[in-house]
Parts: sequence; C-alpha cells; structure tokens
Amino acid sequence: MVHPNLATMLAFLTTDADLPPHLLRAALREAVADSFHCITVDGDTSTNDMVLCLANGKSGVSIRAMGVAYRQFVSLLSAASLALAKMIVADGEGATKRIEICVMGATTHRAAHRVAMAIAKSSLVKTAFFGEDANWGRIIAAIGNAGVPIHPERIDLTFGDVCLLRRSVYLGREAEAAVARLLKEREIRLTVHLHAGAGQATVWTSDLSLKYVKINAAYRT
Amino acid sequence: MVHPNLATMLAFLTTDADLPPHLLRAALREAVADSFHCITVDGDTSTNDMVLCLANGKSGVSIRAMGVAYRQFVSLLSAASLALAKMIVADGEGATKRIEICVMGATTHRAAHRVAMAIAKSSLVKTAFFGEDANWGRIIAAIGNAGVPIHPERIDLTFGDVCLLRRSVYLGREAEAAVARLLKEREIRLTVHLHAGAGQATVWTSDLSLKYVKINAAYRT
Repeated sequence: MVHPNLATMLAFLTTDADLPPHLLRAALREAVADSFHCITVDGDTSTNDMVLCLANGKSGVSIRAMGVAYRQFVSLLSAASLALAKMIVADGEGATKRIEICVMGATTHRAAHRVAMAIAKSSLVKTAFFGEDANWGRIIAAIGNAGVPIHPERIDLTFGDVCLLRRSVYLGREAEAAVARLLKEREIRLTVHLHAGAGQATVWTSDLSLKYVKINAAYRT
Repeated sequence: MVHPNLATMLAFLTTDADLPPHLLRAALREAVADSFHCITVDGDTSTNDMVLCLANGKSGVSIRAMGVAYRQFVSLLSAASLALAKMIVADGEGATKRIEICVMGATTHRAAHRVAMAIAKSSLVKTAFFGEDANWGRIIAAIGNAGVPIHPERIDLTFGDVCLLRRSVYLGREAEAAVARLLKEREIRLTVHLHAGAGQATVWTSDLSLKYVKINAAYRT
C-alpha cells in the first residue's frame, strides 16, 4: 500500500558545530557549489532535489564569523558533500564507470564548468565511455557545443596520465591504445586544457549504458 | 583509403526560383526556425551541422521583395524543411518512435520552445517512450526543469486525443490504459497546455532505445 516515488536526490548533512543559520547557509552554499552542483548522471534535474544541513550546536565549538574556524568548517563540509556527490554518480542508474572531467585553461571558472558539463551531459560521449572507446572527436564536438569561446587549435585531451591530443594534434595509435587500456577501469579521469585563460572546474558523471535504458524503460513492468 | 566521418547533418535545398541572396537568406532563416531548429535526437549538436539553400533562377519566377510571392516561397521552403527535419528524427540512431511535442499556453513562443525541448531532451522521458510507459511524472518534471515560469497546478497533458492530466489532475486508470495503447504506435503526439499565455511551439524527437546505446557504444568494433 505504501509506494513512495518522490524526489531522486535528498541529501542530509548534520553537524554538532555551533553556528548561526546565516553562516551555516553560506557554508552550505559553498560546499554544494563544488560538489552537488558538479555531478550529472543523465542530465535530468528532479524538481525535488535537495541538500539540507542541520546543526545542533552540541559540540560547543562556536563559529560566529567568517574567520579561520568558519573556513575550516567549510572545508570539512565541502569534503563531506563531495564524497556524497561522488557516491551518487558511482551509484547512477546502470553506471559501469565514474568519470572525472577536469577542465583547465578556460577564460573563467564559469566557462570551465560549462565545458565540463557539456562533455558530461553528452549522450555520445557517455555511450563512448560505456563502449570503452577513446572517441576524442565526440569530446571535441561537445566542447565546441558548450557555448563558450575556445581556440579549437589549442586543446589538450588527457585520459589519466596519457595525453591523446596536444594542441589539437592527435598523438597516434600508441597513445590511443594506452588510453583504451585506461578506459577499461571503473574510474576514469579526463583532463581538458583549453589554453585560453586560468579558469578551471571539475565535474563527475557516469557512462550511458544498456542497463540505464533497461532500468528506465521498463521499471514499471 | 577514403573514410570520411564528418558532420552528422548536412541538408541541401535547391530551388529554381529567381531571388537575390538576402531574400533567400531571410527565407531560409524562417524555414529552419520551425523545422531544423525544432528537432533533437540525442541533444548532441554537431559543430558541423548545416543547412544550405541554392537558387539558380532558371524558372524565371522572380521574387524581388517581401511580398506575396516571397511569403508563398517561404511557405514552400518551410514545408520542405519540415519534411526533411522530421525524416531525420524518424531515422535517428536506434529510434523506434517519432514523438511530436506541442506546447501551448506558454507565456511566449520562446518559453513554449524551451519547455518542448526540455521534454524532448530528457533521457528519462525518452526511455519511458521507448518502454511505452505513460510516465506523466517525468514529463511534468521536465517541464518544471525547463527554466520558465509555469503554474504547476494548471497543466494539461494529452497523448494523441487522450487527455491524461487536466489542470494537473490525473484522470485515472482508464485514461492511462488508453494512452498506453497509443504509445504502442510509431508516431506519437504529446500536447502540453500550460494555461499561462498564448505562446506555442512544436518540436520533434525520437525515443532513447537500447539500440541507440549499442550503436554509439560499439560503432568502431
């Protein structure tokens, strides 16, 4: 009789630090900016997604201003948020891989985030990761499609520690074979350098697998 | 030795009408706005997508200003563009269905287009169509996620001629069974009424199938 089918993501964080609501709110905003706002499984945002932080003050550790103790608290809250956010991606529907996408050298942080998210949300990129295929063309196309100014002749693409494209030049079959080996792992790191500025951002996503479609096409049958 | 692997969409239109470049350009802009700009298969835009129109003037039918003949030409060019655009969707990778999404009652045309595209691009909506599942919750979530102001309590959802939600009230299992029958078709029409204004837009998309993932994960193997 009970069959809740509500929001897809509800995150709850608790602390015994003693700090007033406005500081807790500011700290949480900072923490989610680089964690929950930097993940995507399938690009679909639930209108109910939510992150809550509750503080009961029991520890007696009092934070009253944005000083050293506050920065320390933000750093811990950020670490907890990031750990949870990364678990959500690894646990994504049908996910066989977790991919960390780090974009460097963008004109701004915002531009870097947009490029990273464009890659992370591309169905073509995500199916290529599922197929363990070093399809750099799809990544370049997603970058070109992010809506930020880039220099198409300056892009470095590095999988793990293996560079496959340097200044947009393909480094050959040996590099591609090394990347193909890396793509068999469950955890993959892709670094994109745009050589256009100092902006950087990191996001996390999962691949798009056959199981994702099966789960979401037939979950009621 | 020859193995081109270039842009995903190159559309060429030709006409023997006789009209100057600036009028042909204006006509083509109008024609693509409601056709090629209103389709999505997987949300991935190729940076090489292109629509060209060539006119050789051989018919001797001369168009020199934005009068009646020009409007007639735009109407024919629009029809040809729409026919081609709809073929692209029906032929989408792994597509088992073509879905027409008509959004009415938005505050503006632009808002209607954004809502229609948010539905069309949602992986959760597209897998539900593949599974022939009348999952109105995912459609409502995509609408809420489109970034335009809506009245959540006023939404009508109609599949073909069968209304499933009226003013956001679910009309029951009988209506849902009728919708489930419609979802077995290859061509599906979804109408969304937002009751917030006079803006409307129509877009076309395909479902997200197992075959889409297979094609794109293993196309090189």
